[in-house]
Amino acid sequence: MAAEIIDGRPVARRMQEEIRTAVAAYAAQAGGAPGLGVVLVGDDAASAMYVRMKRRACDRVGLRSEARILPTESTQGEVEGAVRAFNNDPAIHGILVQLPLPEHIDEEAALNEISLNKDVDGIHPMNLGRLGMRGREPSFTPATPTGVMALIRETGRAIEGARAAVIGRSNIVGLPVALMLANANATVTICHSRTRDLPNVLGRADIVVAAIGRPEFVKGAWLKPGAIVIDVGSNSVPDPESEKGYRYVGDVEFESARTAAGYITKVPGGVGPMTITMLLSNTMKAAERSLPA
Amino acid sequence: MAAEIIDGRPVARRMQEEIRTAVAAYAAQAGGAPGLGVVLVGDDAASAMYVRMKRRACDRVGLRSEARILPTESTQGEVEGAVRAFNNDPAIHGILVQLPLPEHIDEEAALNEISLNKDVDGIHPMNLGRLGMRGREPSFTPATPTGVMALIRETGRAIEGARAAVIGRSNIVGLPVALMLANANATVTICHSRTRDLPNVLGRADIVVAAIGRPEFVKGAWLKPGAIVIDVGSNSVPDPESEKGYRYVGDVEFESARTAAGYITKVPGGVGPMTITMLLSNTMKAAERSLPA
Repeated sequence: MAAEIIDGRPVARRMQEEIRTAVAAYAAQAGGAPGLGVVLVGDDAASAMYVRMKRRACDRVGLRSEARILPTESTQGEVEGAVRAFNNDPAIHGILVQLPLPEHIDEEAALNEISLNKDVDGIHPMNLGRLGMRGREPSFTPATPTGVMALIRETGRAIEGARAAVIGRSNIVGLPVALMLANANATVTICHSRTRDLPNVLGRADIVVAAIGRPEFVKGAWLKPGAIVIDVGSNSVPDPESEKGYRYVGDVEFESARTAAGYITKVPGGVGPMTITMLLSNTMKAAERSLPA
Repeated sequence: MAAEIIDGRPVARRMQEEIRTAVAAYAAQAGGAPGLGVVLVGDDAASAMYVRMKRRACDRVGLRSEARILPTESTQGEVEGAVRAFNNDPAIHGILVQLPLPEHIDEEAALNEISLNKDVDGIHPMNLGRLGMRGREPSFTPATPTGVMALIRETGRAIEGARAAVIGRSNIVGLPVALMLANANATVTICHSRTRDLPNVLGRADIVVAAIGRPEFVKGAWLKPGAIVIDVGSNSVPDPESEKGYRYVGDVEFESARTAAGYITKVPGGVGPMTITMLLSNTMKAAERSLPA
């Protein structure tokens, strides 16, 4: 039996509709729409595309976005200065520093400049620490992991008590997803490139989140029948039949996985639309918190 | 075959000997020994005992310790003021706030006052976030988890690629141990009270760290034969045969576990002596970093 597809697009549309309503209400009360400040350093084509996509999504829901586009050869001080200018701007409620930064920039120092109450990407170490700790709450939860959790919840299955395997332990996806699943009372196994016998680990997991950036790495035969599979990967692979000569595939071999899984996301159209939606949602939240109580 | 005992006492003694040498060298150079500032609020007997033990350990290696003992009814401002006074005191290199604080004190706010470079307990959210993140380093790693890692390393077995199960997800033990094991490239499963079929999870684990505070909860039959078992629990149970009427047991049923495990710690005499040693070691590190380069 084929898995049910968890389609991120209608979920994202529904949430963006709610955000649009909240933005309009905020703008009426505050006299202006919430603002997202974006810092982009250098001329990496993919980064520029991501920034354009995020700004277009802001437009769709009525958020203002401002971009500071700095040349590749910018100094550490110039990058941090752009962040601080957004920190001090009351019309900017959320700040996004598009990664990766050029090699000569200290990423940690630049990101640490972001005010905690404007860290809508949720990747400040203080926010990640709070995310993992009992009895602490981060200012914001990071966008992609929050989208992953929303898609798991779309299945209606209980997370509490479920066995979950997270493949990958990046700062922006794997680590926070593992912490959020543990917070939701799943029994979480953190898997990575040094994990031995991954099929054995996955074979016991009710929930699998793949976030390793290896095209079609996870095979259907490795999965526990009926599992929920969330594919965060987005890898371009050569495709002579496509007009562009390439296409995007996930970290999961979709065709074999869909026959084993109970629920599965597609790439594209799964986690991707949720990531941007959660960034919009966090920016809206930041603006609401900035209103006088 | 019975497990080999991992005895924390000689390991702690050896490390304390090294710290004593470093303290003497520092004192000769800096004109005074490194200082640990301890904040104790209220008159909880166990907390007072822990503080005495830590201060005695400081004495043994030549560290200075200063205690601010505040009454239970102290205000938030008074507790934070005591922390700030230590922050501003150049003769104090490490700060320890003994937990738990009285109910009316906001623990998070009080702990966040500790300067990151004096957070020798390593429990500031910023330090825990950095501990989990790739490419980031905490100022200090928390004492008990660092002791757990040192005892695992005493076995000489590889952590990389091993399957590890951490039972418990507290801010000061379970969570940071899981992050440190993942950083050491183990495949880590975070288990807790909502975990279903714990024996099945433990049965595949090469390393088990028990930190749940439930006396003799983990049974030998649940373990993978030959596993490394680190017992962080320290639970007092009634014992009519003892002079005091009680004795301390761990979270692991020692007698059944020792026949299954390859290596096992005892309670007391396992993790306990390491915790204090790591606090001393972090205080010494803080002092060394305070010296002009």
